Amino acid sequence: MRQSKHLGKTLKEDPKDAQTAAHTLMLRAGYIKQVSPGVYAYMPFLVRTFHKISQIIREEMNAEGCEELLMPVLQPKELWVESGRWDRYAGAGGIMFTLKDRRGSTVCLGPTHEEVVTDLVRTEVTSYKQLPKRLYQIRTRFRDEIRPRFGLIRAREFMVKDAYSFDIDEAGLNASYQAMHDAYHRICTRIGVQYRCVEADAGAIRGMDRHAFMVLADTGEDTILFCDSCDYAAIQERAESRLEVYPQDNKEKPMEAVYGPGLIGVEPLAKFLDIPVWKTTKTLLFQADDSVVAVMVRGDCDVNEVKVKHFLRCNELTLASPELIKELTGAEVGYAGPINLPPEITVIADHHTRNRVNFECGANQTDYHYINVNFGRDVPLPAFGDFKLAKPGDLCPRCDKGVLREAYGNEAGHTVKLGTGYSEKLNCTYLDNEGKTHPMVMGSYRMGVSRMAAAVIEQSHDDNGIIWPISIAPFQVHLIALNLENEEVAHEAEDLYQRLLEQGIDVLFDDRALRAGEKFRDADLLGMPIRVTISRRTSKEQKLELTFRHKHEGELFTYEETLRTIKDSCG
Amino acid sequence: MRQSKHLGKTLKEDPKDAQTAAHTLMLRAGYIKQVSPGVYAYMPFLVRTFHKISQIIREEMNAEGCEELLMPVLQPKELWVESGRWDRYAGAGGIMFTLKDRRGSTVCLGPTHEEVVTDLVRTEVTSYKQLPKRLYQIRTRFRDEIRPRFGLIRAREFMVKDAYSFDIDEAGLNASYQAMHDAYHRICTRIGVQYRCVEADAGAIRGMDRHAFMVLADTGEDTILFCDSCDYAAIQERAESRLEVYPQDNKEKPMEAVYGPGLIGVEPLAKFLDIPVWKTTKTLLFQADDSVVAVMVRGDCDVNEVKVKHFLRCNELTLASPELIKELTGAEVGYAGPINLPPEITVIADHHTRNRVNFECGANQTDYHYINVNFGRDVPLPAFGDFKLAKPGDLCPRCDKGVLREAYGNEAGHTVKLGTGYSEKLNCTYLDNEGKTHPMVMGSYRMGVSRMAAAVIEQSHDDNGIIWPISIAPFQVHLIALNLENEEVAHEAEDLYQRLLEQGIDVLFDDRALRAGEKFRDADLLGMPIRVTISRRTSKEQKLELTFRHKHEGELFTYEETLRTIKDSCG
Repeated sequence: MRQSKHLGKTLKEDPKDAQTAAHTLMLRAGYIKQVSPGVYAYMPFLVRTFHKISQIIREEMNAEGCEELLMPVLQPKELWVESGRWDRYAGAGGIMFTLKDRRGSTVCLGPTHEEVVTDLVRTEVTSYKQLPKRLYQIRTRFRDEIRPRFGLIRAREFMVKDAYSFDIDEAGLNASYQAMHDAYHRICTRIGVQYRCVEADAGAIRGMDRHAFMVLADTGEDTILFCDSCDYAAIQERAESRLEVYPQDNKEKPMEAVYGPGLIGVEPLAKFLDIPVWKTTKTLLFQADDSVVAVMVRGDCDVNEVKVKHFLRCNELTLASPELIKELTGAEVGYAGPINLPPEITVIADHHTRNRVNFECGANQTDYHYINVNFGRDVPLPAFGDFKLAKPGDLCPRCDKGVLREAYGNEAGHTVKLGTGYSEKLNCTYLDNEGKTHPMVMGSYRMGVSRMAAAVIEQSHDDNGIIWPISIAPFQVHLIALNLENEEVAHEAEDLYQRLLEQGIDVLFDDRALRAGEKFRDADLLGMPIRVTISRRTSKEQKLELTFRHKHEGELFTYEETLRTIKDSCG
Repeated sequence: MRQSKHLGKTLKEDPKDAQTAAHTLMLRAGYIKQVSPGVYAYMPFLVRTFHKISQIIREEMNAEGCEELLMPVLQPKELWVESGRWDRYAGAGGIMFTLKDRRGSTVCLGPTHEEVVTDLVRTEVTSYKQLPKRLYQIRTRFRDEIRPRFGLIRAREFMVKDAYSFDIDEAGLNASYQAMHDAYHRICTRIGVQYRCVEADAGAIRGMDRHAFMVLADTGEDTILFCDSCDYAAIQERAESRLEVYPQDNKEKPMEAVYGPGLIGVEPLAKFLDIPVWKTTKTLLFQADDSVVAVMVRGDCDVNEVKVKHFLRCNELTLASPELIKELTGAEVGYAGPINLPPEITVIADHHTRNRVNFECGANQTDYHYINVNFGRDVPLPAFGDFKLAKPGDLCPRCDKGVLREAYGNEAGHTVKLGTGYSEKLNCTYLDNEGKTHPMVMGSYRMGVSRMAAAVIEQSHDDNGIIWPISIAPFQVHLIALNLENEEVAHEAEDLYQRLLEQGIDVLFDDRALRAGEKFRDADLLGMPIRVTISRRTSKEQKLELTFRHKHEGELFTYEETLRTIKDSCG
């Protein structure tokens, strides 16, 4: 299309309220306009990208035998009550928009469609012969975020593909899950983005598989840990790891309180006590709903609050306030330990705190530490579990030789084995070949369309602007015409524009009466992968300047060479 | 695709609550499933049709220089207050869903996007050089209907294309309006639907052009009047017409009250009085907001309440109750007339009541009528206007010789010249070449996607099911395989399915283990335009049976003939 006809305008300055590169660049390039916090108008160029992402997703979903349907935004409260999720989603801490309609019913704007799709399938499918079923939709979704941020990464209105699978058994679910993963890998590869499929937070459903497809970016929201030797990868909150285990003392020594004023960090403490850091212990007090819990991890570790929360099955977990710590331990922050805590405090401890002989811990007295502490003798054995936060440098939990490395990324896709949780609650069953009733075994698979666009930009940009992969760029080619006041150049540019269009190339024709500098600045910002510049200079030489956005340096080619290169690049 | 893999199932019986053919057939064919009143899941086959309709619309919008964007569903209250429409849309009589979000703001689910698009354009466009702009989106919309009905025709959640044009002046608007009309005509033609572009109700904006694109159907919601001679066409509420004018008496006769008990209809009254019906007068009393208005029309006409409402600029117009009529006129219903009404009642009269000499009217006394009444002498001249309902048989208001005929239809598209109403209120202005500020001149253009699908079915079906036009059918070809237990037939069917797919034909392959009768019944109901049947019989003859859905009778052809016919039909 002709750029002179385009609605959006570019901004020279970074908008003040943008927090990430993608957010900043999308606003500056005129790809999005904020209508209210977390709610954006998707401007014409970005809509082209959304269409391309959606089409890739659609083709790969269809290739795995999925049927596309479209379920409503407006969902009745009754279905959410039936699934048992109404209170969690519609309550004060929830993220669901709800409203009362003129008919007097309470409805919600579905942030997800498990309830509706299960309701559909339970009426349409009755026999094992009709299974498996794999269904998906691509549509606008809503989350009533109190603090929307990072542009399209955490928006209140966004575009997403969600898919659901229904199988007769666990083996069927595994096959559907694998099919969706295969599709997701192909989608990410076709988009041309660097990504990792990682184990994701198990959330509320324990023991079930859950994966995230993370688009890598130095500024990503989430930290990923991956093994440098095998294919283990997980988001940090979910990750497991092994720690180096050291030879222990042969003999338990007598426990002893040591005066060590102001020694709060484990490093100075270990130095002062002349022990290795792994012999020190961090004991953190948390408010877990209505009770207080003390969590022990090795001094060289931090607490993984997500895992603690799941272990305790509590709704809220927050660090205890200094006042509460003082009240409960009698000491300032930094001296908590498992010995002599009030009996109403439950103590839990990470596995790696366990097999230590003569370890250190806080003495619940300001400036005092116990050394040579031993479980069983000085501290009753607490409940042990995986409570430490895995970190780069830890040993791989899967293979013998790997070490965990860290990367950052934004989640673009999320898959989860739901099992029979929803189908049992909503009575979504089938009859087997003996006429017996079973709940269907379900899976749920999400991939963000608007989020993918933002995540790609977060990964692929430079100081001057966006660098779109050609698969999802709004236009494959940006044709920059300079010296348009020269009739010959104008004629040649027009001619080239038509030739590119005829060859089925998506081309943006910068026909605006602006200076070269402004055009190039806009082109860098907008980020089309291939740039063709036509000017008095190229015209005189009967050539065209071809520049790849990710390379910067342009080169002169003949018309035919240029067209051939473009055709090859556009596949 | 293979029908055995499809989610939806067909119903043998008509659903009880479906009110129209399209509603019934869409439910029976499994194209829609109700999730709550007026809210439907669009099942996979229908989504295919939506994609095809959307793509036709998209191509024709793009051809007229429109840019596609996507504006949010969630709209801030502030914009609607700024445009002055909040109270009307969000109030008790409105149709907008509203809610309070967790951030404490009031937001609405946009039933239309004039506010948002005007807000976008006012920030992006500042100069006459950037105009015109034509923008559109295809998206889900919401209307909080108290009584949703007719399936997708009056749903609470639906899919629609809306476009907006911004021009520097009236001439620009006219050009944009024409461009959109050209696109709409091409869209309807490509879909292959019988339609009429008609003048539509002028609504609240007086004097501005407004048109509807009506898809014809005997059971349509709206009545259309069209000239049998010229191209005048309008929906009935908006239509004008001329009435036959008769020679009048040369001399005014003395007015006289006549006792005519029980003569309420104009036919028996005219007969009793021995006068032609056109000499009688209907005088109807209406409650118009807080006042009462008497409306006079010729006895052979009815009152057009929409026009009266616009003339009076009132919000509510309802027929006065019998009690109120009695109180005001002293007579039972049926005897109201313009003479001796209480002075607080305004009298207005249709133009065609005017040039009559010695006409009849009610006497405001039960069982009494005045005859030989004359304006000016017996009745003060009231305000005259176009208040009668045009009807079939009336004379065309545009040409000399035409007579109005009637047709029925469902509105699929609606276009309106908005002028500067929104741009003035929202301060959406541009600078002209002398640096002077002007409001942009706007137009708004809607076309329903889900409504179009329903309207097409309403027009194109028979007793057995839907008859899709090939352009928007979920599948172009329905391949029915019988005797699949026969290996040879099964092999041939599979082979043919693959050949059709390879040729880029959308084909639905009925590979289900059902009896022939059930398969044909489903095929008729689902309504794919071309049916190819393969069976032991056709296999033996080395032929295929080809049936067009709108013709019923199948014929045997060779493979090559069949494939050629399909290719030709699919364009």
